[in-house]
Amino acid sequence: MSQAESKAHLEVIDRVECLQLLDGQGVGRIAGTVEGYPVILPINYVVFGDAVLVRARRGGALDRITDNTMVAFEIDGTDGVYHEGWSVLVVGRPDQVTDPAELDRLKGLRLLPWAGEGRDLFIRIFLDDVTGRRIHHSEA
Amino acid sequence: MSQAESKAHLEVIDRVECLQLLDGQGVGRIAGTVEGYPVILPINYVVFGDAVLVRARRGGALDRITDNTMVAFEIDGTDGVYHEGWSVLVVGRPDQVTDPAELDRLKGLRLLPWAGEGRDLFIRIFLDDVTGRRIHHSEA
Repeated sequence: MSQAESKAHLEVIDRVECLQLLDGQGVGRIAGTVEGYPVILPINYVVFGDAVLVRARRGGALDRITDNTMVAFEIDGTDGVYHEGWSVLVVGRPDQVTDPAELDRLKGLRLLPWAGEGRDLFIRIFLDDVTGRRIHHSEA
Repeated sequence: MSQAESKAHLEVIDRVECLQLLDGQGVGRIAGTVEGYPVILPINYVVFGDAVLVRARRGGALDRITDNTMVAFEIDGTDGVYHEGWSVLVVGRPDQVTDPAELDRLKGLRLLPWAGEGRDLFIRIFLDDVTGRRIHHSEA
């Protein structure tokens, strides 16, 4: 079915399905600003409790992004054949975990920093503002 | 090779390879702010001339993002088995194409808006600020 013959629908993905999609992926992207310029960085993550959890290197780009007031975290999936896709967006104020007992617990998680050693900051974005949308096509 | 046995390297991808990677993909993500909140939206695109070109609906989220001074556009690829990945980032001031002759030319491109009809704005982000990075692992 070509796109000319089909009609596109933009659907809202509800919170329950958004959380399922977040649980089912391992790499997302985080966006914010560094020195006034917008930045998007891919990052591996886990959902832990009521937050998306990522690791960052002190002073690195991600640390500087999350030093700002608000960030966006996004995951998506696309189907290039049918021109369909979905995305989930989490927007929030990043929170650096500093409590030693909690840090010990987080270090036991399967969240190895892909970009290597020295990423000893644990930063979470709480799942307060979670939205999702899906594009799909039906015959016109 | 597990990550514990390997060493991660962060490599810079040069401009030539960044442009090749941009040419080889069709879906990226654009980030900016809407009403003060950061947003990331997946979007299909083409590289045309010296710009990344996307289509947007007047008044839609993408139109409102690109109404701001600067946006980030990103593509990436990951290898979940080896925990490797790359990303390319384009940062710039979005430019809405308004010249009728140029619009006619752009309408002939293979850039169908996945999200359906009514996306009659053509917005380009010039390839002035293009950076890329790659994470790869070698045995420690």
